[in-house]
Amino acid sequence: MKIEEEGQPQKHECCKSLNAIEDALYVIGGKWKLRITLALIDGSKRFNELQRLLQTISPRVLSHELKELELNGFVQRKVYATEMPVVVEYQATEYSLTLKKVLDALVEWGTMHKEKIKEISAPSLTHP
Amino acid sequence: MKIEEEGQPQKHECCKSLNAIEDALYVIGGKWKLRITLALIDGSKRFNELQRLLQTISPRVLSHELKELELNGFVQRKVYATEMPVVVEYQATEYSLTLKKVLDALVEWGTMHKEKIKEISAPSLTHP
Repeated sequence: MKIEEEGQPQKHECCKSLNAIEDALYVIGGKWKLRITLALIDGSKRFNELQRLLQTISPRVLSHELKELELNGFVQRKVYATEMPVVVEYQATEYSLTLKKVLDALVEWGTMHKEKIKEISAPSLTHP
Repeated sequence: MKIEEEGQPQKHECCKSLNAIEDALYVIGGKWKLRITLALIDGSKRFNELQRLLQTISPRVLSHELKELELNGFVQRKVYATEMPVVVEYQATEYSLTLKKVLDALVEWGTMHKEKIKEISAPSLTHP
């Protein structure tokens, strides 16, 4: 094997995976997008409902994130003009369901990690 | 069912999942942590190797991210003082392997999403 080729196939695979993660995070990275998507997969919601659920998000940021999620095909804005005042609801699209595995893996990992942190910090709480 | 209880159990489940995702993103969120972890699970690397692989990361940011990953138990810094100059290598810990499902799901989704984007943009390239 030539020196310049050493480790190339493995590196190539790793690069491909790195690029794929970059592509994913470019669209769904950041603090809010996956959380908004999860909340909407759980059921359509109005703006205020979402804001209450996500607690620390500002209306400006929520509005911006929803627009980006809509642009990327994860969220659909539904306007019910038959009611007065007009009701606007956000709903998860079918495409957002492709994120289910990512969301499930993150929820599972987050739950496990919190448990681990609790276990680690528990002894120091009993012996301050 | 009382009005104030309507939809409560579902909301509770959704909140739990939202909190779990928040816990996960608090530790592994951001642009680089998952990519660095993936690169190190692929094999231990020196600082410069990592930087080359991640391309657009600055040394300052890489150094900061590695320190945080080390603090959170995902990365171990190995110093081989037997060689001159001293060799420093970063390696993935066993705990970082708990992220495998998250990483796999993101790689899979990123790959699928890029293919979809290519499909969408292909016709407009042939008919500008």
